[in-house]
Amino acid sequence: MTTDQNEHRPLTPVLDRVTLPSDLKNLSDRELRQLADELRAETISAVSVTGGHLGAGLGVVELTVALHAVFEAPRDKIIWDVGHQCYPHKILTGRRDRIRTLRMEGGLSGFTKRSESPYDPFGAGHSSTSISAALGFAMARELGGDPGDAVAVIGDGAMSAGMAFEALNNAGDLGKRLFVVLNDNEMSIAPPTGALSRYLTRLYAEGPFQDLKAVAKGAVGFLPQPLQEGARRAKEMLKGMTVGGTLFEELGFSYIGPVDGHNLDQLLPLLRTVRARADGPVLIHVVTRKGKGYAPAERAADKGHATAKFDVQTGAQAKAKSNAPSYTSVFAKALVDEASRDARIVAVTAAMPDGTGLNLFAERFPRRCFDVGIAEQHAVTFSAGLAAGGMKPFCALYSTFLQRGYDQIVHDVAIQRLPVRFAIDRAGLVGADGATHAGAYDIAFLSNLPGMVVMAAADEAELVHMVATAAAYDAGPIAFRYPRGEGTGVEMPEHGEVLEIGKGRVVAEGRGVAILSFGTRLAEVMRAREALLVRGIQPTIVDARFAKPLDRDLILRLACTHEALITIEEGAVGGFGSLVAQLLSDEGVFDGGLRFRQMVLPDTFIDHASPEAMYREARMSAPDIEAKVLEILGVAVAKRA
Amino acid sequence: MTTDQNEHRPLTPVLDRVTLPSDLKNLSDRELRQLADELRAETISAVSVTGGHLGAGLGVVELTVALHAVFEAPRDKIIWDVGHQCYPHKILTGRRDRIRTLRMEGGLSGFTKRSESPYDPFGAGHSSTSISAALGFAMARELGGDPGDAVAVIGDGAMSAGMAFEALNNAGDLGKRLFVVLNDNEMSIAPPTGALSRYLTRLYAEGPFQDLKAVAKGAVGFLPQPLQEGARRAKEMLKGMTVGGTLFEELGFSYIGPVDGHNLDQLLPLLRTVRARADGPVLIHVVTRKGKGYAPAERAADKGHATAKFDVQTGAQAKAKSNAPSYTSVFAKALVDEASRDARIVAVTAAMPDGTGLNLFAERFPRRCFDVGIAEQHAVTFSAGLAAGGMKPFCALYSTFLQRGYDQIVHDVAIQRLPVRFAIDRAGLVGADGATHAGAYDIAFLSNLPGMVVMAAADEAELVHMVATAAAYDAGPIAFRYPRGEGTGVEMPEHGEVLEIGKGRVVAEGRGVAILSFGTRLAEVMRAREALLVRGIQPTIVDARFAKPLDRDLILRLACTHEALITIEEGAVGGFGSLVAQLLSDEGVFDGGLRFRQMVLPDTFIDHASPEAMYREARMSAPDIEAKVLEILGVAVAKRA
Repeated sequence: MTTDQNEHRPLTPVLDRVTLPSDLKNLSDRELRQLADELRAETISAVSVTGGHLGAGLGVVELTVALHAVFEAPRDKIIWDVGHQCYPHKILTGRRDRIRTLRMEGGLSGFTKRSESPYDPFGAGHSSTSISAALGFAMARELGGDPGDAVAVIGDGAMSAGMAFEALNNAGDLGKRLFVVLNDNEMSIAPPTGALSRYLTRLYAEGPFQDLKAVAKGAVGFLPQPLQEGARRAKEMLKGMTVGGTLFEELGFSYIGPVDGHNLDQLLPLLRTVRARADGPVLIHVVTRKGKGYAPAERAADKGHATAKFDVQTGAQAKAKSNAPSYTSVFAKALVDEASRDARIVAVTAAMPDGTGLNLFAERFPRRCFDVGIAEQHAVTFSAGLAAGGMKPFCALYSTFLQRGYDQIVHDVAIQRLPVRFAIDRAGLVGADGATHAGAYDIAFLSNLPGMVVMAAADEAELVHMVATAAAYDAGPIAFRYPRGEGTGVEMPEHGEVLEIGKGRVVAEGRGVAILSFGTRLAEVMRAREALLVRGIQPTIVDARFAKPLDRDLILRLACTHEALITIEEGAVGGFGSLVAQLLSDEGVFDGGLRFRQMVLPDTFIDHASPEAMYREARMSAPDIEAKVLEILGVAVAKRA
Repeated sequence: MTTDQNEHRPLTPVLDRVTLPSDLKNLSDRELRQLADELRAETISAVSVTGGHLGAGLGVVELTVALHAVFEAPRDKIIWDVGHQCYPHKILTGRRDRIRTLRMEGGLSGFTKRSESPYDPFGAGHSSTSISAALGFAMARELGGDPGDAVAVIGDGAMSAGMAFEALNNAGDLGKRLFVVLNDNEMSIAPPTGALSRYLTRLYAEGPFQDLKAVAKGAVGFLPQPLQEGARRAKEMLKGMTVGGTLFEELGFSYIGPVDGHNLDQLLPLLRTVRARADGPVLIHVVTRKGKGYAPAERAADKGHATAKFDVQTGAQAKAKSNAPSYTSVFAKALVDEASRDARIVAVTAAMPDGTGLNLFAERFPRRCFDVGIAEQHAVTFSAGLAAGGMKPFCALYSTFLQRGYDQIVHDVAIQRLPVRFAIDRAGLVGADGATHAGAYDIAFLSNLPGMVVMAAADEAELVHMVATAAAYDAGPIAFRYPRGEGTGVEMPEHGEVLEIGKGRVVAEGRGVAILSFGTRLAEVMRAREALLVRGIQPTIVDARFAKPLDRDLILRLACTHEALITIEEGAVGGFGSLVAQLLSDEGVFDGGLRFRQMVLPDTFIDHASPEAMYREARMSAPDIEAKVLEILGVAVAKRA
């Protein structure tokens, strides 16, 4: 790769001739190989400027070229599971001119997105949805809907999720033409766990890369009739291959593989053959390396999964200097601290040991830490089983992924009042990952479950107390949420204190208007207070700590002693503010008049930007809080006049 | 089987000696066989009195006896998946004296339930949770928690759910001692679909029932060392068995089977062997017949899945005379009507073709109806794919099971604004199935999703209009909910009318107090109105039709022209009432005082009883509505004085 040092842009003569996938049809196989090299360089260059998911995209450069060279998007639907490996795809599908805006406000999404391009037939962000979606396209086609092939590209890590299995099971049964490319890089984000992963590893060990001729012969059904008999015999001999694919073949798929996903001389003829011949569901097992072709990524433990901006030559990342520890690390340390004094504490995560900080816990207590893979439903019910068996499970998930275990929370945890502790990371708006990863709903979907305790940390010291509170609480399920990013820099306690369940704390006494904050908006509320003090308005500020049970006494007292009450939370309607509204209406507080407002996330999906910008768009920053106070008091003045 | 004709009770001399499973230890194998026969007769007798799930229990009579004879509950945890096959288990575990109160108010639950007995280590109701729970118990044991073995008994239908796969994958990886009994009756509720089901059928066809000796030998690892070599050779020969279990063996389980689940001479020695020898996860594939041993059940298409009270001799069920069609059948007919005029309409269900009425649709449009098996996550995203491919999918699920697809609703449907139509049956409290099946949360978890339209039918004619409205609406996702049971007997339209999105209807004009009803509480509201009219109170009654978007104009007008506003819905807090509260507070309506109450399901899980009794307990019946109006107006009077 040569690089223009002035612009840090690689030279890309072949890529420069490609605007849309149709341009690939004019390239020879030799040119396609060069295109792949250039596409890799361009991807590295772009991500060095924007930061983002690097390793996954580098792993599928050749696969991206091959799929677009052989299939005909957008008529054919190429569906990238999770979507974070789609940067090369975006470069080839009319978005190269914006590729250096990835994950920035107003720029390209870091995932596939229907509203962004017709070449993204199905958006993603959460894993393991692609086979279901592809099967939907395939069956729509069979019934006279959109024509074209459906191709799901799914990683081995994503295969551990139940819904991928559900989709394979259904697709194998329906038996219609459908392509599933299993992109086996032996990594999801962390090294994958689970028996399926071992199975794939063994397949690879038994028949590392089939040479293309054998592979094509293995796909007996796809070959012209006269060749089939010989091929069938060849297949019999390829024990690794036939035995290898049994699991998928039992589910009704034709299995082909494993093939070298970085070798276009294998990929192109293979895809051309199956495209020409397939008449049922086909699984193509492609082995790739995450981070392929960029040494710093290949060397990294996470294979360059997600990166800040970096220097292309050295791989050095431009990490922002942090002033305070991240909530994630505060949680992890607090949990390790509790667990060092309580042998019953165990931890469960779903393929996110680093993201949740449980890697720290696993180092210290390897037997007590369970990474179940991308399998949130199982993670929740497994935690329920651990609790029923006498342990104290902390089930640590991102808010957005906890949605996958919602029924299990209701049915297996809440109805049985089992003391599962939910540590909910990435609560609220999360920044560059955008709408698909927003932690917007957990307050609402947890707080209307009988017997559930729901907390939110206002700062990182509060988080430490909430870990201690959850560890001590054994009467039923308890959840605590905290955001992505750094804390506020408050002084940290040595150990957590056990909080009184259902009690808030008054942060600042005032009069006229009271603001009840649930979660880390408290910092913005305090900023708004500063501005209001200048205007002679002195609001009472409360950190509610609990959405459930509510601090009834405190809230009713505030309602009695103030003219106006405002709630604020980093979540959608239906949560903390709604529970306060219910309390106030039940108690007849509104009967005599009470100025009351709920500040919640707006009724829109907010696109990726910095968290601060997203909260500005959500109108939940300090100036918005100040304005809300002025509005509510302004109304009061008007009414009095 | 002999029966005491006076009491319709079978004679059960052996069963009479059994109060707890420990009593089985004193019985010979011959007596255990007799016990099984008596247990079957007792089960039939009990269900003839109570109604309930019959077929599943009859299929596992011998398995129940064998498990309790070999394992030591409650130290060993026997976890029945779904739990509706647990009646024989309940009879053997200290609950025989109450078995004729099954599913009745104050009586035994129709499912396993932790609060009911220590012999129910993990409650159920929804399927496919048992392996996750059992693995939790097993790992807790390994870490010093509760001792004892964990045994999950799971049906072949339940195996199609992703979470069962997630659990197998994790259990195979962890490699600890754990027993999974796959109860293969080739039926879930409907005949199962999916490639896995075909796979199991083929296993059975290839090696119908292994004779016990071969089976025990197949379990090579469990045999004493000197026997292992011979056994290993025997295993090699048992091609059906070795090949057969590949799918499970690939996932890290030792596979044994298929064995005859009605033959104690096979079950007892097998379970004794594996209990003595297993040191890792074991899957025992047992083939049974649903409804076994009771001719009317064996003859029935659903194998006696669920039944009303019946005559034991004839099998004739005492069906209550119905005055109005069920909501389910009204939905199904309306959908068939729409689909006959719109070829783009397709239907998706998850193993509930009868329960959702889609069997009617499938008869008429077999290619356009998809039963994906117990796989709600896939059902939702598959529907999203169908919509993206240009079809009009109606995804018909029970409210309680839709919880399984919650993340997919958020991520694959709502964020992408795909026009998936959710037909939500069994909304609200459902009666004998109890808390696990309550449809309490869908209004809340759908109504805070941007772009979602959420309707509830007030009666069966409204349901017809909502089906038409959903068919016509193509701008994004839309949901409509309706309860279990019969309609109100209103006059039915020939075809549905397309309703204006976001507009309610005034059912009765009045003054003073307005009641906004969302869903079928409207009938109770109208009853309350009758009683109030007698007292000289004339409430305005509104059928809101839409929880989202709200009819802002109507609600704000009512708030202006009435002193008091009451919302009522068959759902938990966070839904319709909360959205109305948000509107009222946003618009400053409370500032000047408005008597406002939300009637929602209470913050408790309500045990099984008749739906009417459950709504009485929830304080949501006509007298409660009347009382709420009097209270709210009484407060007004007091304040005026």
